[in-house]
This record gives sequence, C-alpha cells and structure tokens, in this order.
Amino acid sequence: MSDVKINGHSQRIAWRFAPDLVEARLRAILSQPAPFAGEEFGGFHALRAAMCGAVFNGGKRLRSQLVLETAGVAGGQNFDAQSALPAACAIELIHAYSLVHDDLPAMDNADTRRGQPSCHKQWGEATAILAGDGLLTLAFETVADCARPRRGVQILARAAGECGMVGGQAIDMDWSSRAANVSGEALLQMHAGKTGALIKLAAQLGALCGGANEIQSAALANYGAHLGRAFQIADDVLDVAGDPQITGKAASDNANNKFTAPAIFGLEQAREMARQSAHNSVASLEIFGDEANVLRDVARFVVEREK
Amino acid sequence: MSDVKINGHSQRIAWRFAPDLVEARLRAILSQPAPFAGEEFGGFHALRAAMCGAVFNGGKRLRSQLVLETAGVAGGQNFDAQSALPAACAIELIHAYSLVHDDLPAMDNADTRRGQPSCHKQWGEATAILAGDGLLTLAFETVADCARPRRGVQILARAAGECGMVGGQAIDMDWSSRAANVSGEALLQMHAGKTGALIKLAAQLGALCGGANEIQSAALANYGAHLGRAFQIADDVLDVAGDPQITGKAASDNANNKFTAPAIFGLEQAREMARQSAHNSVASLEIFGDEANVLRDVARFVVEREK
Repeated sequence: MSDVKINGHSQRIAWRFAPDLVEARLRAILSQPAPFAGEEFGGFHALRAAMCGAVFNGGKRLRSQLVLETAGVAGGQNFDAQSALPAACAIELIHAYSLVHDDLPAMDNADTRRGQPSCHKQWGEATAILAGDGLLTLAFETVADCARPRRGVQILARAAGECGMVGGQAIDMDWSSRAANVSGEALLQMHAGKTGALIKLAAQLGALCGGANEIQSAALANYGAHLGRAFQIADDVLDVAGDPQITGKAASDNANNKFTAPAIFGLEQAREMARQSAHNSVASLEIFGDEANVLRDVARFVVEREK
Repeated sequence: MSDVKINGHSQRIAWRFAPDLVEARLRAILSQPAPFAGEEFGGFHALRAAMCGAVFNGGKRLRSQLVLETAGVAGGQNFDAQSALPAACAIELIHAYSLVHDDLPAMDNADTRRGQPSCHKQWGEATAILAGDGLLTLAFETVADCARPRRGVQILARAAGECGMVGGQAIDMDWSSRAANVSGEALLQMHAGKTGALIKLAAQLGALCGGANEIQSAALANYGAHLGRAFQIADDVLDVAGDPQITGKAASDNANNKFTAPAIFGLEQAREMARQSAHNSVASLEIFGDEANVLRDVARFVVEREK
C-alpha cells in the first residue's frame, strides 16, 4: 500500500506496485552516459538538468501507476512489474514534455509549475523547447524496450501526436485565441485528445505489457477512455467550484474558463457527467474480479477528490 | 537516374531509387484519417497544414535518399526499397521538425526558410511548436513500421535526442549566448551532435533495413559519420567563403560565425578537413564493390558543391 497524490491531494490507494519502481527506473534513464563531458558543454548539462527538473517535480505518477496496475490486472499471478516499467516510464516522460511545452510563453505562458519556476523561467526558453524535445524523444527510446516495441510505439505515438494530445492542444489554443463558440460535443472531443488520450494510453500500454487478450484489451481501453473523461471534467469542476483553501488555486469564473465542462454544460450537469463517466469506467471492468479493485478505486477517487 | 539538390544546387546523382518513392509515402503518412473533422477544429487543420508545409518545402531529401541507397548496398540483389521506406520517411520527419523548432524566435529566430515564411511566421509560434512536436512523434510511429522496430526506434532516438541532435543544438545555443571560447575538438563534437548525428543515422538506418551484417553495418556507420563531418565543415566553408551569387546568402564574416570550422581552424585547414573527411568516408566503403559507387559520389559532391 502506498500514497498517491491526485492533483496534490494525498489519497490512499492500495497500488500493488510501489511508485519507487518507476522513480528508480526514471533516474537510471535520465543519467545515461553522454558523449558531451567537460565544462565546454555547459549547454548540454543545462539541458539534462532541465529535463530532470521536468520529470522529478513531485508529479503524482498517476499515469505510470495506471500502466503498472492495468498490466498487473491483465497479467495475472505470474506478472512481473519489470516488464511494464519501460511503458510506465515512457508515459511519464511524455507527460513531463507536454507540461514543459504547454507552459511556454507562446502557449499557456505559465511562470510556475507545482510552486516552482516553470522550465523556461528557470532555464530559458530555448533550453525548455529542447528539453521537451529531448524528453519526447527519450519516451520513444524507452517504450521500445517493452516486449512488443512496434505496437508500444504505435499506440504511444497515436495518443501523444497530432490525432491525440498535440491535436487537442492545438484546438484548445485556437479556440482561446478567437473566443470561439464551442459545442459540448466538440469540447469533449478536444478533451479526449488534450488530456484523455494519455489516460486511456496508460490502460492500453498496461494491457499490452500484461499480455491481455483481445477482450481484456478492449475492456481496459474502455476503462481508460471513460476514466480520462471523468478526470478532465472533474478537473474543470474543481477549477470553477473547488474550495480555494484546498485546491490552492483561486476559483476562476466562467469567463476565464470558457472551454470547460461547467462553462458549456453548467456546473451541475458537469458534475453528473463526471460521475457518469466514472461509473462507465468501473462498468468496463465487469469481466475482471477483485484483482481490478484498485482500478475501481482510482475511478472513484478521480471524481471524489477535493483538489 | 535523378537529380538531387544539395543545398539548393542541383547535382546529378544516379540514385538507384527515385525520390518520388519517399514523397509519395510521406504524402500518405501526412494524410491519415483524423478524429477531428469539421470547422470547429480549425486548430487541428492549421496544425496539419503547418506539419505538411514543413515537410513539403523543397528540401533536398538527401537523408532519405541516403537511407535507401545504403539499404540497397547492404541488401544486395533481392533488396526491395519498400522495406526501407518507413525509415527513410522517418528521418525526413525528424529533419523537418528540427528545422521548425530551430527557426523559432527563442532559437535561431529565422523569419524565412527556403525563401518562404518560416513555420511560426506563417502559422504562429504555438502552432509551430506543436507542429514540431507532432512531426517528431510521427517520425517514431513511422520508423516503428520497419522490420526491426526496437532497433530502429533506438538508433533514431539516440541520434535525434539529448546525446545527439538536441544536445548539439543546446550546446551551440549556449556558446552563442555567451560568446564562448571553443576548442577545435569541442566544435567537432558539437557538430557531430547537431548535424552529423542525422547523416550518420541515415547510413545506420539503411544498414538496418538492408539487413547488413556486423562488418557491413560498422563500415556504413563509419561512412555516415565521416560524411556528416564533411557535410558540416563544407557548409561552414560555404557560409564564409561561398560566392554569394551562387549560395544566395551574403558571405558572413567570422564575427557572425564564431562557431564554425573556418573561424576556429582557419579557412584553408577547414577546407582540407572537409576533403579529408570525404576521403575517410569513401575509404570506409572499401569492403563494397561498384554497388557503393553512388555513396562514393555523394561524399565527393558534399565537398565539391558550390552552394
């Protein structure tokens, strides 16, 4: 049993694999021998420090723990968590890169991230762009160590790329730049790309690494898709209706959050949608027994959290 | 036989595979069905247009043709170019992404690229960052289609990432920002990362896709490493000593090109180094017969070109 922080709030989830496994592997991945040794290569040392800062910044590791947990559910009794570590680390590297690039002045222009200066504030914009590029590249090198490298790389790329996370971010940036009128359906599609794709990916990679059969893979992918939607809507709800004392963020009004579920569906309907998505997520696990209870807990925590 | 443009200068190289193969495959890769259809998703359509603009901009396709050519040399009589197309396209996607990010205001701040507005000038900075991210991601999805996906992804990631191209760019940016004093050895190491790694990668990917044995692989990797050095030094020489009427660029003085081979070694020694690297490149091909003549031609063209 170990703690997991969901949006900074410590929740007791009985993960079956310790988060330390992922931390240790990420440390190893980010300290491989480099060809640039010596003081003339300060630019390289800054780059690597920026990459490490982006990865080891107190993130909750929800995505990597989901990879391990779903892999464990699919893998059954003889499952060895080592076999899912490359995929688990790869998804954290992708997540870290996306935050570095999202924070850039041309994107969300965020000066801080988890209470620390954002990557470009600390290391400069050029290094931040390159650190994101380096992390994205390293994610693929890492996932290629899984037992089915072609499939692992493909599903990672589709979730992270133009038809997933990168596409969702591009759509969100476009809407914000022109105060667009957005339908509820379009909002959910944008969410599915921008944040949902990576949560769903965690379940898909877990299924792959755990050797899930087709029925199990489909069930776990469904679980991840609904979980991703629940996660994002719950996040939107907390943004507009969370207790600032608990969330640590000022509750924003709708004008600042035009493209959120509460702004488009109304607060009560958004809350109900999050609950329904969590319910659908749990329902997707019907073919599994008690071994999927942690995944069920995660779905409940995601919508019940207060920050 | 077909033309290849090396730095904009049309050179007749008798490539054994038509560049059209790569163009057609790249078109297919960049027009896959997307989940974001309809006018609400203008941000996605701009993203894809920016990605296409970066890939189809009149580039010389030297890297992809090198992949096909080295694969053909390694593969012998029964070689089918189709088997090397994923790797050939992947390296062009990486090259395109790197130019988009290098041109950004925080990096080289270039308003134009090949006589057209650079990506961020045409589409805005946020879209350019995301287009680069999307192309980088797509490169890995693409290379994973080769016959040895794990190895293909690994060598692509190592050449393109923090220990290769991204690291070299970080070092160059750092030097420029503080007018560093740089040794000749450090300059060549930076070059080997920033530009050399991708040229060497072309030969490595070709060897992989052509099914080269260990001795052939080592010879082709050596060829690529020396060719990459020759290419960059020749580029530096043209920058300071090329005929502006032919290169289309004003010959810059040393003050603007502090971190170039002529600035650090002197013009004549730089010229000699380029010739020597081309010679070493050709010498690496000793185990091959006439089937490697095109690769020998490429090495000669790289240092003899006038622009």
